[in-house]
Amino acid sequence: MNIPAHSARPLNVAVVGATGAVGVEIRQCLEESGLNLGEVRLLASPRSAGQKVPFAGGELVVQALDENSFHGIDYALFSAGSGISKQYAPAAVAAGAVVIDNSSAFRMEEAIPLVVPEVNPQAIPAKPGVIANPNCVAIIATVPLAALERRHRIRRLNIATYQASSGAGAAAMEELRAATAAYLAGEAYPPRVMKHPYAFNLFSHDAGINPDTGYNGEEEKVVEETRKILARPDLAISITCMRVPVLRAHTMAISVEFEEVVSPEAVKALLADAPGVRLVDDWAANHFPMPNEASGQGDVLVGRIRRDIGDPSGRSVALLLAGDQLLKGAALNAVQILQRLVG
Amino acid sequence: MNIPAHSARPLNVAVVGATGAVGVEIRQCLEESGLNLGEVRLLASPRSAGQKVPFAGGELVVQALDENSFHGIDYALFSAGSGISKQYAPAAVAAGAVVIDNSSAFRMEEAIPLVVPEVNPQAIPAKPGVIANPNCVAIIATVPLAALERRHRIRRLNIATYQASSGAGAAAMEELRAATAAYLAGEAYPPRVMKHPYAFNLFSHDAGINPDTGYNGEEEKVVEETRKILARPDLAISITCMRVPVLRAHTMAISVEFEEVVSPEAVKALLADAPGVRLVDDWAANHFPMPNEASGQGDVLVGRIRRDIGDPSGRSVALLLAGDQLLKGAALNAVQILQRLVG
Repeated sequence: MNIPAHSARPLNVAVVGATGAVGVEIRQCLEESGLNLGEVRLLASPRSAGQKVPFAGGELVVQALDENSFHGIDYALFSAGSGISKQYAPAAVAAGAVVIDNSSAFRMEEAIPLVVPEVNPQAIPAKPGVIANPNCVAIIATVPLAALERRHRIRRLNIATYQASSGAGAAAMEELRAATAAYLAGEAYPPRVMKHPYAFNLFSHDAGINPDTGYNGEEEKVVEETRKILARPDLAISITCMRVPVLRAHTMAISVEFEEVVSPEAVKALLADAPGVRLVDDWAANHFPMPNEASGQGDVLVGRIRRDIGDPSGRSVALLLAGDQLLKGAALNAVQILQRLVG
Repeated sequence: MNIPAHSARPLNVAVVGATGAVGVEIRQCLEESGLNLGEVRLLASPRSAGQKVPFAGGELVVQALDENSFHGIDYALFSAGSGISKQYAPAAVAAGAVVIDNSSAFRMEEAIPLVVPEVNPQAIPAKPGVIANPNCVAIIATVPLAALERRHRIRRLNIATYQASSGAGAAAMEELRAATAAYLAGEAYPPRVMKHPYAFNLFSHDAGINPDTGYNGEEEKVVEETRKILARPDLAISITCMRVPVLRAHTMAISVEFEEVVSPEAVKALLADAPGVRLVDDWAANHFPMPNEASGQGDVLVGRIRRDIGDPSGRSVALLLAGDQLLKGAALNAVQILQRLVG
C-alpha cells in the first residue's frame, strides 16, 4: 500500500465520478476536511475530461478515468455507479490505493467492511483494500439507531422514507426543477430521467421490483445494509421507500420496537448525546426535522420522539429523521471514513 | 324535515363554504351526481357574496351565510371549518335540513354518524339530523381497509402519510405554487399560510401537537375516526402524518397486521372486488399509486401489495394508497352520502 504514516507526507487522493452530484460534494468535503492533501486527482468519463473545477483556491482539470489512473494514489473515492466500481476498483487496489466505494458493488460482500464511522468504526481493518460506503438511507438511519441499539436491543424497525431526487443523481435533481417549472408554466414535460412525472408528484422508489418479493432494490439495500452495519443479521425491518419532490435531503418516519419497554424520554436522552445527531424536536413550535434544514448539514436531524401508540406493549418509540443524502448519505460519510483511516 | 319522498320533487341543496377548495369540488360533484336538483344555494362569507359561478350550464350567485340561509333547504353540505359548522349547523337543522358536515366539529360525538358510504352505510339513521363526513386520510384509508376487515379481522395498522397541500385549503395550494415559483426564480418567499417553507420541502403535519402525547391533531383524528368508521374502538394504530409538496392527492404507506396469516394474494383479490378501489399494482413497470394519477379520480388507488417482511409471523401485508383529498377525501364522499340519503 502507498499509505504514508500518519501525517508523514501529504495524501494523494483520487475522486472517481468527480463531476457527479456526489463527486461535487466529495470535493467540497475534502476541501473542508483538514486533511493534509497532496495531489487531488479528479477522474470522470471522457465526456467530462478537460473540465476545469475550482479546488482549494486553485483549479483542477478533470481527467479521463482509465486502468492507469491510480498510479501514486493513496486513497481512491469512487462515486460513479456500480459498473465503474467493479471495473476500476481492482486497478486502484492493484496500484496500492485504498478504495472507498460509494456504489453498491461490494457492500454485501462478506469480506468488505460497510462503514458508518459513528456506528461501526471497528469494522475498518488494519490493512484495508476496499471499504464500502453504505446506501444513503442506511447511513442516515443507522447514525441515530446505533446510539439506541448500544443501550437497548432493537427487535424491529418500521421505516417509511421520503427520499429526495439527489439519490438518483444530478440529472434527476435537474429534472425535478425543470418538470416543476414546466408545470407552473402550464407546459408538458415528458419524464426523461425518472419513470414518472415528478412535478408536485411522488412515487414508489424507481429501483426495480424483485418479482419474488415485491420489494424494490432500494428497500432490499436498506434492509441488508442496516443489518450489516448494526451487526444484527436477524433484525426485522418493515420498509417502504418513496421518492418525493424534494431536492437533496432524505426524511424517514421510523418506529423502533425494542426488546424491552423504553420511554421516549430515554430515547431522547440517548440521541441528545449521540455523535452525528442533532435533536430538532420543538413540540410547541411544530418544528421537527425537515429536508430544507437538513440540506447542507452533516448531522442527522431527529425529532417527533414519542411513544408509538400502535404498540400497546410500550416497547415502541416513533421518530422522524432528516439527513442530507449527498453529504452524510454519501460524500461526507466517505470522507469521514478517509479521516478515520488516516487518523 | 323537508326531505321529499324519493324523487318526488327536486331537492333543494345548500353548499356552505361554496368558494373554498372543497366547495368548488362539491359544486362539480353535485353537477355530476345525477341527483334531481331544485335550488342549489351557494353560501359563503360576506367577502365572497355576490360572486357569480357557473353551475349546470347556468350561473349561480354566492350568498352571504347567516342564520336565515336555510329556509326551504333539504340538504346542507357544510365545508367552511369547524367554527362555521358549530355556529350554523343548528340553524340548518332547525330549518328542517339534513346537514352533511365536512368539518371535524361533530365527528366524534357519539350520536353523530361518521360515514363512508362504501364502508358503513348502515350508520346512516332513518331520520338523520347531522351526518359527519370524516377526515380525508380516514376516508381514503378505510375504503380499502374495510374490504379487508370484513373478511379478516385487523389487529393493527401502521400508517405513514404523504399529504397534499389541498388538505390545508386553497390558500395552501396557492402557497405551494407561489413558493416553488419563487424558489426556481431564486427569490425569497416567506411562508404565509403554512408554518414552514413549502418549496421542494416537506414537514410534519401542521396541526398542533398534543403536549400529553406528542401526536398532532391530524394524527389524533385519523386514529379516532378510523376506529369509529370501522366500528373497531380497540384497533391499534401507529401513525405519522406528513405534509409533502404535492397539490391535491394524499398517499399512504400502510402495513396491515391481521389476527391470522393472510397472503398478499388474498388481499389483492379482496381489493380487486372492493367498491371505490382501483388496483394499480404493476411490478414490472414500477407503476403504483401516485398522487398525480389519483387527482381527479373518485376511486382510491391501491398497490404495492406485498408481505410485510418486518413481521415474520406472516400476519402483515404492506400496501400503498393514493386518493384525491378534495374528491373522495371530502366533496365526493359528502355527495355520495347525500345520494345514499336520497335513495
